[in-house]
Parts: sequence; C-alpha cells; structure tokens
Amino acid sequence: MNKEIIEQRLRNLQDNICQSLEQLDGEGKFQEDLWERPGGGGGRTRIIQGKVIEKGGVNFSAVHGKLSEPIRKKLKIESDDFFATGVSIVLHPHNPFIPIIHMNVRYFELNEDKWWFGGGIDLTPHYINTKEAAFFHNQLKNTCDKYHKDFYTRFKKWADDYFFIRHRNETRGIGGIFFDRLGPETGLTKEQLANFIIEVGETFIPTYVPLAKRNLSTTFNDQNKQWQGLRRGRYVEFNLVWDAGTKFGLETNGRIESILMSLPSQASWTYDYQAAPDSEEEKTLQLLKKEIDWLGYI
Amino acid sequence: MNKEIIEQRLRNLQDNICQSLEQLDGEGKFQEDLWERPGGGGGRTRIIQGKVIEKGGVNFSAVHGKLSEPIRKKLKIESDDFFATGVSIVLHPHNPFIPIIHMNVRYFELNEDKWWFGGGIDLTPHYINTKEAAFFHNQLKNTCDKYHKDFYTRFKKWADDYFFIRHRNETRGIGGIFFDRLGPETGLTKEQLANFIIEVGETFIPTYVPLAKRNLSTTFNDQNKQWQGLRRGRYVEFNLVWDAGTKFGLETNGRIESILMSLPSQASWTYDYQAAPDSEEEKTLQLLKKEIDWLGYI
Repeated sequence: MNKEIIEQRLRNLQDNICQSLEQLDGEGKFQEDLWERPGGGGGRTRIIQGKVIEKGGVNFSAVHGKLSEPIRKKLKIESDDFFATGVSIVLHPHNPFIPIIHMNVRYFELNEDKWWFGGGIDLTPHYINTKEAAFFHNQLKNTCDKYHKDFYTRFKKWADDYFFIRHRNETRGIGGIFFDRLGPETGLTKEQLANFIIEVGETFIPTYVPLAKRNLSTTFNDQNKQWQGLRRGRYVEFNLVWDAGTKFGLETNGRIESILMSLPSQASWTYDYQAAPDSEEEKTLQLLKKEIDWLGYI
Repeated sequence: MNKEIIEQRLRNLQDNICQSLEQLDGEGKFQEDLWERPGGGGGRTRIIQGKVIEKGGVNFSAVHGKLSEPIRKKLKIESDDFFATGVSIVLHPHNPFIPIIHMNVRYFELNEDKWWFGGGIDLTPHYINTKEAAFFHNQLKNTCDKYHKDFYTRFKKWADDYFFIRHRNETRGIGGIFFDRLGPETGLTKEQLANFIIEVGETFIPTYVPLAKRNLSTTFNDQNKQWQGLRRGRYVEFNLVWDAGTKFGLETNGRIESILMSLPSQASWTYDYQAAPDSEEEKTLQLLKKEIDWLGYI
C-alpha cells in the first residue's frame, strides 16, 4: 500500500466526516481554506461555526520535504526526507452537555522501509455521564478488537497518560485511545494498519453523533455555561502547555491557524475555583482520573 | 543589605500597591490567600475582581529550600540552597481601552556571594494609543535613568525579545522593561540594585493609574469587547507557550493558582481572524512589533 492511497483514503475520510457533521449541525457549513506548505505539500482546513457545533475544525494535510536537524533529533531519526498525511478534528459544541471531541489519524513515512501510523480519539465531556462514557469506550474497543486483542487496553492506557494535565493533576476528559509509531512490530501489515487508522476515523461519526443527538435539546443554565468555560480553559491549558502535537507545530513553524483551530471560541479562568460539594461539577472532577474502567459503567 | 530586608520591602510594596489599586477600582477589594510551600516559605496571593479590574492578582512570595537537580541544571547553578522573594502582578481590566499590565520584581539568592535581581513592567493595550505608550515608556525610562544610563535601552530591548509571541510573529503588547540576573557586573551595589527593583515596583502605580483613569469612562461596544477577547487569547498563548516563568512554575510544581492568576477571566479565539483594513484593530496589529521607539511618539 503506497502513500498516495493512504493520502486519498484520508481525504475521503475528511469529506465523509464533514458531510455527516453538517447533517448533524443542520445549519452550519464548513468553510474551506486550502493552503500550501512552503517546503512541500499542503492541506485543506475546514472550519464550521454552526447551531450545534460552536467551533469545529476538520483538517486534512499531506506534506513532504526535508526534516530539519532539530526535528530529526527530536524524532530520533536519521533520514531527512519525509512524508506525512493525516486528518485532525476538534469540535467544541454550544451545549455544555455535549462533549468536546478530538480525533487524529496520521501516517508518517521516511522511506519504503521506515514508516508508522498514529492517532486516536478522545472525549472531553464538560459533565461526565458514565453511561455515555461506557458507550464511547465500547465503540473504540469494538474497532480496536477487530485488529488486535491488545490494542484497546494498550491504547486506552496510552490516552490516559497522554491526555493528562500534569499541573492540575487531572485528565483532560475521559480519555479514549491514543497510539503512535505503530509499525510492523505490531504483527500487522502496513495494509492492516492503514485499514485500522481509517476504521478509527470511521468510528468517529457513529460514536459522536449519538452522543451529540442525545443532548441536542438538553436544557442548560448560566452555571452550566460557566462551567463549560472553565473546562474549556483546562482544554486550552492542556493544548498549549502539554500537547506534544501542538508544541511541535508551534516550534516548527507549522500552519498556526490550523494547529490552533483546536482552541474553543471562548474559555474562562476563575481564581481557585471550588466546585460545590456533591454538585455535578464536583462529580465530574472526581472522575477526571487515569485508570478508570469506563467499560464497567455499562 | 540582607535578604530579610529585601523581603520586607517587597511585602510593603505589595501592601502599598494593593491599597492604591483598591482606591482606583473604587469597589473591588483584594481577597488574600496565605499559602505555605511544602519545601519552605510561602506567600500571600491577593486577587481582586472589581468594577474597573475584572480580574487582577498581586502576589508576594518568599520561598527557600533545596534546588532539585533538574532545576539546578536549568538555571546552571551548582549550589543547592536557595532563597527567592518577589512580587508579581497581572491586571485584566473590564474596559478594552484600559490596557492589561504585568509587573514582577524579584530577588534570588544562593548564598552571600551569589545572588541576583530580576523583574520588569510591560503593558498590553488591547488598542494601542501611541501617546499613552510614550507616557508608559517615559515613566520606565525615568526610573531606569536614576540607576544606570544604559538600563532603559538594554531592558527595553530585553522586553521586546522576551514578550514576543514567536508562533504569531508579534509582540504581546508594547513591551516595557525586562531584566534578569542583575548582579555586581552592573557596577551597582547590592543595595543600589535592591533600591532599583523597589523603585521599579513603585513606578507601577503612578504609571498604571493615570492610564486607567484616562479611560475609565471611555465607551466601548461589542466589537471592542470581542477584540479584547481575542487579545486576551494571545495573552494566554504567550503565557502558556512561551513565558519562561510560567513554564518553570508549571514544571516544578509551583502553586498553580498563583501562577495562573495571570490568565484573564475570559479569552476568545476565532479561526483566522482578519482585522478590517484601516480599522483600529489593524492599526494595533501593525504596532505589535519589536524595536519601536515608543518614546518618539511623545
């Protein structure tokens, strides 16, 4: 399976996801920005600001060129030609009872023998609903199980560790799956791994749409919106302080607007916020921990 | 001049500044949090949420203990006993025509022979008014000139370089002065340097209060508030991505709420925002550059 095919399948994935999200939103339409990377390749950044999705981005890119010395050191690789393609999504909904979601699938190639796949999906509910969390993780597990019996367990832990806001000692949300540098050592062929990331991508819509639809008309008050603002603040903190992908992009002169499309339209900070005892906010805070067996909540 | 005296002068500075800011605000009162650092020392974090100042913090701390191996490496120092004291301020006003301001003065000591001073004041107007910028820089220059003929020029450049949002290729605001590790090599005695940072601290009120008062009743509309939100977003980006002090605090388990008191109560992000040609917003963007001779605008 050559890189052109993977690239094409990711383009199609972007198209299909955008179409389904417009359908979900009912009002918002994606605006597309085509961009070129000075060193080679480019992308299609698509942004939606709709009725359900307050701010969302679905980005496709396929770039190639030469790796700079500092990046090669950072990635611990010797070759300097590279090709990278992927789809990245972050959606910030209006309704605080609909979760924020992030998805990314990507393929990286140095040459015919040296390549890998990465990606994942994770969910950041403003209010954690354990049944919805179980549904979410179950969906991811189903996809993982088709490819490898250990994938879900391994990638669920990887997400717990990755989406962790160290300075707050809390997870960003309920995690999901995260994986990087998957290659032949998995026991899967390149074609199987390509199928895997595409299927992770295809799991996005049938997982997020039901979660969104469930809460389309859930009523919310000012307190719920304020809490959403604070949780978005934590999302900003994670992305700007800890997210390796964002940091890498900012330090290597990536396309800033595509990288920072992940930020919400509004975020809030309150000095030393304390959730009221036994409130829904406090219940959520108590669940922002690693190593929770979300499947067990079914 | 021993460290107890410097610490006491900084406590007094915090007290005086808080008193003057309450007077300026007319309504808001500082809420104080006393905290202790597990490794030694502690601080007084004071937060105001008032009529003029939407969210502001004036923090004093005096901490001591042992430096960990990674921190010693980062600071390139050998001794492991340390003492550090300082005052830090960030104010986010309601009115978009009143600028955000930041001030910090600090003293760091390893032993009697190895110590240094650091600090600075910088201004982040949502809308740059060049006359006000000239007044601001002139105030800083006056204070610097009392101590060293090169201080203003040197520290103004240092601020330009430090308060720079690299991934946006723009300065955070109009800069000001920034300095670090000032010791005997300046030609000043320890006492003179202590006097210098205290006087920088004392320049804060007579500089900011006139800027605030000038615009207390300047009317603003929704567009001005939206722009303020976007500029606050850039402030968040700088602090979380580039600010060495913030990063140091987050990585070394500092008191998170005191470190992140610098964040505004609300910030916004819009994908690929473009200021309208010849608008006030565009004029401000064109002035977010290094090496502007603000004094020349008088």
